[in-house]
Amino acid sequence: MPIRAVVWGENIHERINKTVASLYPEGMHEAIATLLRKDPNISVSTVVMQDPEHGMTEKKLAETDVLLWWGHRDHGGVADEIVERVAKRVWEGMGLIVLHSGHFSKIFKRLMGTPCALKWREAGERERLWVVNPLHPIAAGLPQYFELEYEEMYGEHFSVPEPLETVFISWFQGGEVFRSGLTYKRGAGNIFYFRPGHETYPTYHDQTVGQVLRNAVNWAYNVQGTYKAIHDAPNVPVEKALEKIVERGPKLHAAGEEGLR
Amino acid sequence: MPIRAVVWGENIHERINKTVASLYPEGMHEAIATLLRKDPNISVSTVVMQDPEHGMTEKKLAETDVLLWWGHRDHGGVADEIVERVAKRVWEGMGLIVLHSGHFSKIFKRLMGTPCALKWREAGERERLWVVNPLHPIAAGLPQYFELEYEEMYGEHFSVPEPLETVFISWFQGGEVFRSGLTYKRGAGNIFYFRPGHETYPTYHDQTVGQVLRNAVNWAYNVQGTYKAIHDAPNVPVEKALEKIVERGPKLHAAGEEGLR
Amino acid sequence: MPIRAVVWGENIHERINKTVASLYPEGMHEAIATLLRKDPNISVSTVVMQDPEHGMTEKKLAETDVLLWWGHRDHGGVADEIVERVAKRVWEGMGLIVLHSGHFSKIFKRLMGTPCALKWREAGERERLWVVNPLHPIAAGLPQYFELEYEEMYGEHFSVPEPLETVFISWFQGGEVFRSGLTYKRGAGNIFYFRPGHETYPTYHDQTVGQVLRNAVNWAYNVQGTYKAIHDAPNVPVEKALEKIVERGPKLHAAGEEGLR
Amino acid sequence: MPIRAVVWGENIHERINKTVASLYPEGMHEAIATLLRKDPNISVSTVVMQDPEHGMTEKKLAETDVLLWWGHRDHGGVADEIVERVAKRVWEGMGLIVLHSGHFSKIFKRLMGTPCALKWREAGERERLWVVNPLHPIAAGLPQYFELEYEEMYGEHFSVPEPLETVFISWFQGGEVFRSGLTYKRGAGNIFYFRPGHETYPTYHDQTVGQVLRNAVNWAYNVQGTYKAIHDAPNVPVEKALEKIVERGPKLHAAGEEGLR
Repeated sequence: MPIRAVVWGENIHERINKTVASLYPEGMHEAIATLLRKDPNISVSTVVMQDPEHGMTEKKLAETDVLLWWGHRDHGGVADEIVERVAKRVWEGMGLIVLHSGHFSKIFKRLMGTPCALKWREAGERERLWVVNPLHPIAAGLPQYFELEYEEMYGEHFSVPEPLETVFISWFQGGEVFRSGLTYKRGAGNIFYFRPGHETYPTYHDQTVGQVLRNAVNWAYNVQGTYKAIHDAPNVPVEKALEKIVERGPKLHAAGEEGLR
Repeated sequence: MPIRAVVWGENIHERINKTVASLYPEGMHEAIATLLRKDPNISVSTVVMQDPEHGMTEKKLAETDVLLWWGHRDHGGVADEIVERVAKRVWEGMGLIVLHSGHFSKIFKRLMGTPCALKWREAGERERLWVVNPLHPIAAGLPQYFELEYEEMYGEHFSVPEPLETVFISWFQGGEVFRSGLTYKRGAGNIFYFRPGHETYPTYHDQTVGQVLRNAVNWAYNVQGTYKAIHDAPNVPVEKALEKIVERGPKLHAAGEEGLR
Repeated sequence: MPIRAVVWGENIHERINKTVASLYPEGMHEAIATLLRKDPNISVSTVVMQDPEHGMTEKKLAETDVLLWWGHRDHGGVADEIVERVAKRVWEGMGLIVLHSGHFSKIFKRLMGTPCALKWREAGERERLWVVNPLHPIAAGLPQYFELEYEEMYGEHFSVPEPLETVFISWFQGGEVFRSGLTYKRGAGNIFYFRPGHETYPTYHDQTVGQVLRNAVNWAYNVQGTYKAIHDAPNVPVEKALEKIVERGPKLHAAGEEGLR
Repeated sequence: MPIRAVVWGENIHERINKTVASLYPEGMHEAIATLLRKDPNISVSTVVMQDPEHGMTEKKLAETDVLLWWGHRDHGGVADEIVERVAKRVWEGMGLIVLHSGHFSKIFKRLMGTPCALKWREAGERERLWVVNPLHPIAAGLPQYFELEYEEMYGEHFSVPEPLETVFISWFQGGEVFRSGLTYKRGAGNIFYFRPGHETYPTYHDQTVGQVLRNAVNWAYNVQGTYKAIHDAPNVPVEKALEKIVERGPKLHAAGEEGLR
């Protein structure tokens, strides 16, 4: 069964900005989806922010193995309730790939627990991404570096937690560096942040970027399915202790009482 | 200048539960403060949830180097606005030590980005904490293990992110294990989670626990002070690029425009 | 194409100790191989220390995707040259699974860079392994914990580097804990240390242990094959720099000279 | 009591190469020592490779809190026995700071367990080091980046294990990036790798480099002293088990027998 990937598109600049519209006439989400569809093992659909519940209904999320998130213009417009719903699915094992300006999305900040801020410059400068983790599944089939001739600069300090692994580091023409490919795990969910993807450049028509995204979907996918127990904080009563023990001392909770949250 | 440590106490069970009141007649926060005061390098004050703004005014936080947080009965009663304020101070470099049932506090969940759930049993059983990171500053002066004869059990899976370092792992009489001392960094702030501390037991009268808490305050303290830049996402204009570059390609942002959040 | 797993057996206690011989009449390596063969995706062969070059010829290693290593009685008898050869294959991307007393094998110590010491007791006590990383591929299909009724105790402190991820933590009847499942990456090679497997107990006839080993082989396998460039330290001459630069300042090396090692 | 820092100098190029000799007339080790001496909390001495036992006698090591290592021309000339001795002291808690070409030193490769290879180019190009971990003790007092106008280029992939924390990332004029400040822990010893320091450039006369080195010495220093138990693998006899257990099942070891290594 193929991996069910869903591309979430903010879908605003494509409609209000001529440059973006001409680069991505069907929306950035569709360009990303097209890159993913080159992998026969990935089944791709797209949703946009303007869909009911931002396209992130309980049903849709339950059918999503890996979610890709691109947003920029209106992070604040995403309902908090939906952000919590997506976070829960990540904890249960859904993969999440956060793209470019998604560093400031509510869902990424929610899962990182940090500001996720960075320096930036929009000057169409050259970015060169170096693989610092050869044979990492996300770098499969890549050369030792690849270039994007026109990109927005993102510079350190990128205020995210120390990652599980760093996969890419970017060099920018104007003198900055950036950790461009970072992996995390939150609950049972694999998370990958991938830097490139400014909407005024043809990044999502780039075949190497496509390779990275396909790799990332395969990497983030958890074949074991959904782990609902991640939400539980079960009481283990004395009589069910794995080793025989005798209850001692004063107690706060009455028997069978639920824990406090 | 001594480290300014502030103990935040929920201060509820001490007032409504006879067992807790008799163990901690001046409140658990005062017992914790007493343990810290044995270190002449630490200057200790306490605040409680019932104080205005839960004791976490902008002024108080600005004067706090390391915050210790004990809560259990009413995590939900802490105002979201205050939680955000505390998170911001952590990102700026304030140390944070989260104690026992504080695993479910809003501030800990906010900074971890995960459910922070676990198994539990209140049976006054024996806990043995093993040092798995000898010579870590938080384990300074400790033996290879230490015991708490009466404690609540917390069992894995503890749904937190993979830590920077694991300092303690607990063995429980009833058959469970738990990662009892974990370090994190969020923004510029050092975070330590320390498991023991159930309110119906005399844990905060234990001298080894006191040693751990004093060590943790010293470890979490950032001598460099406050890093306000952690909140910034500055634009670096082309003319101020560190290497001379020429602006190219289409742009989304007008010159001098602020970035989108 | 199936994953080519090779089980390396020290094959000494099976021949000189009656208990071990009766538990593992065809050798521990064959028992381990039998567990792996339940996965049709794994093609298994075995070698033993007594084979020429300890079974680790250049040819055999080139045909090995994942190596499992069990040794105890004669770590010192493994030739240093072979250890280096195995280490190089790990760096190139071969997976390595180190079992039980293999914590003191030359190859594990070589790759960890630490003493890899621990406490131990041979008393046939109960071990309970807790999954602390649900949905990690190595924990696929496992319950929240599993037990081995008779095992040797290994206790902390286990002097290994902080792992990439902790998968299992063991509880022991006699009061100790141990980090029983740890992942590492060295060069392009994935490494997993798995604690159980004392030779006087039937651990390698246990079906849950078999599940872990099969999972670990699948996890450690690098589908991308061999990364020979891991050994290179190439000079990048000025005229081949990716950005045009002009050579400046004094030089140590003549043009085209190899780097110093 | 001040921190006892020892600078280990290979001391070859200073004597055979005119450029290096004129930049560092008293040897590179003395230039490094001079930078450290600006911190009154550090007591500095130097040894050179040509000293008896390379200056690393048991006595000298016992009196060393933090060791700084610069070598390039003759890594192979350092006796293996001395390398093992230094490694043991690191495991016991001695700090180690490995400088520049020391990435290929025996001691660094020994502790990393990886090839530690990288790309390089000697062209006197500009290096800009970005702080990616603000308020890390090693970055204390530094601006957001600093530059070295003339340096050798080191480029990724740097084949070292994933670090505990990344402190600096370098941008190079010729188009490469490099993780220039990495922290590790091996046993009880803190390790910092710091990239700059090519012998034909005045890097060790740079005041910001001096600040980093002083910071690193303070960070790597373990105030708790020496942890000899790191080498032990003690047997815990049944009668001394912390919880009462009864010996069961067959045994390999006779009572009181030492463990196998």
